[in-house]
Amino acid sequence: MTYKPATQDQLLAIRVNAGIAELAESERFSAAEPDLVEAIVEGVGQFAAGEWAPLNRKGDLEGAKLENGVVRLPDGFEAAYQSYVEQGWNAIAGSAEYGGQGLPFTLACTVLENLGTANMAFNLLPMLSVGAIEALEAHGTEEQQARYLPKLISGQWSGTMNLTESQAGSDVGALRTTAQLIEDGEHAGKYRIKGQKIYITWGEHELAENIIHLVLARLPGAPEGSRGISLFLVPKYHLNEDGTPGAHNDFRCVSIEHKLGINASPTCVMSYGDNDECIGELVGAENRGLAAMFTMMNNARINVGSQGVQIAERATQQALDYAKERIQSARAGAADRSPAAIIEHPDVRRMLIRMRSLTEAMRGLLYYTAGQVDRGDIGDSAAAARAEVLVPMLKAWATDTGIDVASLGIQVHGGMGFIEETGAAQHWRDSRIAPIYEGTNGIQAADLVTRKLGLEDGQALQALFADIARDAGDEANLQVLAGECAAIAKWMREEASLDDRLAGSVPFTAMCAVAVSGWCLLQQHRALADSDDEGRKGAKRLTTRYFLDQVVPEALGLKAAAVAGAGLLYELDSDALVG
Amino acid sequence: MTYKPATQDQLLAIRVNAGIAELAESERFSAAEPDLVEAIVEGVGQFAAGEWAPLNRKGDLEGAKLENGVVRLPDGFEAAYQSYVEQGWNAIAGSAEYGGQGLPFTLACTVLENLGTANMAFNLLPMLSVGAIEALEAHGTEEQQARYLPKLISGQWSGTMNLTESQAGSDVGALRTTAQLIEDGEHAGKYRIKGQKIYITWGEHELAENIIHLVLARLPGAPEGSRGISLFLVPKYHLNEDGTPGAHNDFRCVSIEHKLGINASPTCVMSYGDNDECIGELVGAENRGLAAMFTMMNNARINVGSQGVQIAERATQQALDYAKERIQSARAGAADRSPAAIIEHPDVRRMLIRMRSLTEAMRGLLYYTAGQVDRGDIGDSAAAARAEVLVPMLKAWATDTGIDVASLGIQVHGGMGFIEETGAAQHWRDSRIAPIYEGTNGIQAADLVTRKLGLEDGQALQALFADIARDAGDEANLQVLAGECAAIAKWMREEASLDDRLAGSVPFTAMCAVAVSGWCLLQQHRALADSDDEGRKGAKRLTTRYFLDQVVPEALGLKAAAVAGAGLLYELDSDALVG
Repeated sequence: MTYKPATQDQLLAIRVNAGIAELAESERFSAAEPDLVEAIVEGVGQFAAGEWAPLNRKGDLEGAKLENGVVRLPDGFEAAYQSYVEQGWNAIAGSAEYGGQGLPFTLACTVLENLGTANMAFNLLPMLSVGAIEALEAHGTEEQQARYLPKLISGQWSGTMNLTESQAGSDVGALRTTAQLIEDGEHAGKYRIKGQKIYITWGEHELAENIIHLVLARLPGAPEGSRGISLFLVPKYHLNEDGTPGAHNDFRCVSIEHKLGINASPTCVMSYGDNDECIGELVGAENRGLAAMFTMMNNARINVGSQGVQIAERATQQALDYAKERIQSARAGAADRSPAAIIEHPDVRRMLIRMRSLTEAMRGLLYYTAGQVDRGDIGDSAAAARAEVLVPMLKAWATDTGIDVASLGIQVHGGMGFIEETGAAQHWRDSRIAPIYEGTNGIQAADLVTRKLGLEDGQALQALFADIARDAGDEANLQVLAGECAAIAKWMREEASLDDRLAGSVPFTAMCAVAVSGWCLLQQHRALADSDDEGRKGAKRLTTRYFLDQVVPEALGLKAAAVAGAGLLYELDSDALVG
Repeated sequence: MTYKPATQDQLLAIRVNAGIAELAESERFSAAEPDLVEAIVEGVGQFAAGEWAPLNRKGDLEGAKLENGVVRLPDGFEAAYQSYVEQGWNAIAGSAEYGGQGLPFTLACTVLENLGTANMAFNLLPMLSVGAIEALEAHGTEEQQARYLPKLISGQWSGTMNLTESQAGSDVGALRTTAQLIEDGEHAGKYRIKGQKIYITWGEHELAENIIHLVLARLPGAPEGSRGISLFLVPKYHLNEDGTPGAHNDFRCVSIEHKLGINASPTCVMSYGDNDECIGELVGAENRGLAAMFTMMNNARINVGSQGVQIAERATQQALDYAKERIQSARAGAADRSPAAIIEHPDVRRMLIRMRSLTEAMRGLLYYTAGQVDRGDIGDSAAAARAEVLVPMLKAWATDTGIDVASLGIQVHGGMGFIEETGAAQHWRDSRIAPIYEGTNGIQAADLVTRKLGLEDGQALQALFADIARDAGDEANLQVLAGECAAIAKWMREEASLDDRLAGSVPFTAMCAVAVSGWCLLQQHRALADSDDEGRKGAKRLTTRYFLDQVVPEALGLKAAAVAGAGLLYELDSDALVG
């Protein structure tokens, strides 16, 4: 159950896939010098392993609890959060103007990767705050930024995103929460918010001094659907004139959900304005709330994709440790008939190598995507477009793969894996949320084959596959996969109906993600060619070869499903399908 | 959360894949006439849905509890078990001589399939008893059979299998429980048993009047390893002269495990002979215990494979029901802009059809395998050999696929899927044990590429692929897959090292299972060609086409891994792999 930060592999991905040296050449990210980068990656790894990881099991067992309207976390969470804030880890990418370090998003990703590997449920607290920070940075007034950003960036206050209502899940446009302009009095110019939101992650807790809720609601007479939604900032405590938290706003956490996993993360049902006194401020323009949410959603999706890496890393480490210690049977056919550690048995070894290979490949994709976001932020529009196409691949494939790796982790443990005390099962339970929230993986795949497919006249996607094909060299499997992805994308864009594209979207997304991840891993492997560290070189060769020789061909097996079209799906009407 | 028995699809599989009519032509199974078969399949479906299914959620929530040495089940379990015994469902396949109906194993499979779909954890109680019955039928003395079989067959008593010890899991030969012959006194000729066993499913409970434990132990001076293990029958209550339960034997349930799923099934740590007074009888010959266990293990593995079908059926029904009711967004591109049931959206529909297709394909494989067992039991040695090769495919692939289907069930529910109250998560948690127990799926795959690969000089396996290829006709994907399986099997048998075979065993097993399942589904589809029921015909066409056109190509993607060999796996030594 120990957790060793994957510092060296993170540094490699940050160097090779994110291209941090190139980023540091820009004025904006000039602080991202190698020494600082290394200090951050090492430092947050040690912090996460030392202070957050020990709370992971306890958080699962005891969970968040609602008691008389107050959400309680297990002992230790409050101190661990304070320590996180005090050490400045929340402020890595925040704007320097408001107390942040202004470093690349890539490095903020490393912070969250480490925290989430240590404790996935706990990590959702800073992860959601990032969304609030980005929304205010992009759409807040200067006054709003000055009032809220310093505390959000430091982490003294936390943030949430409030989209979902019971009838409005993937269909955000169906939400009914209302906002009404206050004409006069103390709160003139602000809005009265009323409605109920569900699935609000860390919607209520006592770890931060204030909670800044970003709430989607409708103004009177707003257009129906998603074009009639506005974004509001609703603080738990109103701010006094001096900016300190004052009176409690009129909303409360009604209940918290009993979930399959991430039990230390309170998933709240929030009721706003039971006494018609819930006050919020408009963020951005009226009826442009969904667009504002989308600006932060891309990065949030990257951080959810990262959860696949996180859970896979943790599960892999635990399985490796167990397999090295657990003695069972002599190795089949071996001259030595004494019982061996199960890591020596071929199929257990295959599972462990698969776990490690998938984890490293996902990490390559994560940092490649993050690096493209950073390039986009300093004006590289091709990189921005590439980030756009990478995000749904990362979010969907890495979260699905995180589950697969956690499941292998259980399998390596045998019977022990099914016993909760072992801890392997928690990783698998925790992992299951990631394909669902922040846009289900079906939504990600739909995004890829609709909006993203057409970006830059389809060139955003085609250029990616061309880059992979160019670099693949004599790696035949990767070459073929890149070619198939390009051909399917072309077919989807030029010939397939919308239904056909959607029908093949999920397998197509996985194919693309495997192609990009294989490419990222290959680049890492090549980057180590001149390394003196034979151990690392050999280990990367192993995971790269496993991925290119065995995982990439599996992805090719998805082609038939990607191009099958929607005809078959609608052969039966729905009643006949239900049977 | 309702559950409708899959009666029609079961009857189809029993007819087409098990070939029940042919079985009924034998003297032994002449009672298996169509009317009786139909009555059994319908009857047990209604029983399971009516009396066991309503306890599924309650069993998960409350679980089995150990209180002062007594294992308590939630209210309702005892009555539901009594009802099961009284209606005679336990006695379907038991030998007529001892009160059973002597019907084919195939029909006993249907009973367990229905009970397990209703309540997977509860179903383990009768499922384990089957093992005890088979062991006594095959290896017990006439006296033992007369004393124990009638009550076990009726279900008034239950049975268990005691193999595992903390240091002896997959390596059963490492067990240390001892048995010592009692020379004189009341128990002369019996044995004193001493040791601790773990993972004993339904090892202690109050639902049956007695529990017959079959315990593997070592006699003094027995050879080391698996050749020195003997099988003992250890009743919870000693039998009085008249055969009724008398004094409590000297063993107890020390604790029950806190598990990821199947919470209503008490998984017991059993301590035998704390006071040196635990008395057991030898079953079969000294030191031949493992062989005796293996005779029943084949059928037990089929019933575990069936759990993949069970959980998939339940998850699929729940997802279909939800998807039909849940309204969310208009269908993309549709002229009608009003929100639609999510079953109308292409990717949700794809998930649902995938779930249904995989479930039906697994069911085809299940009944095909069961039918071959029955043929073997009436002297068809080719069928017996075929059953041998089918069992590891069914056990491994169906249990893995059961998890995948349950996971899709969660995904169809979106956020609701992660909330425990919905029930979708329980199926997924429950499903996770099946790839582990009764021989992990890695053990199944090893069995296929070692012992089973060489059966009948390799012809047991090759004849299967030849049959598939012959029937595949112009189904190109299936034809190719059968050919690849045959080629890989040939390579494994003639060229590959043991390590190479083991390295590719899991993907190879999945490929084989998909080939056989696709064949079974195709046979079902063809069998309905003349049916007047256009609805059923269309539904089967849909699931068959989905499987052959999309699932079979995925399995082809596993070929590279199946033939990759073990070289890569051992490039790094274990310490370097752990990192």
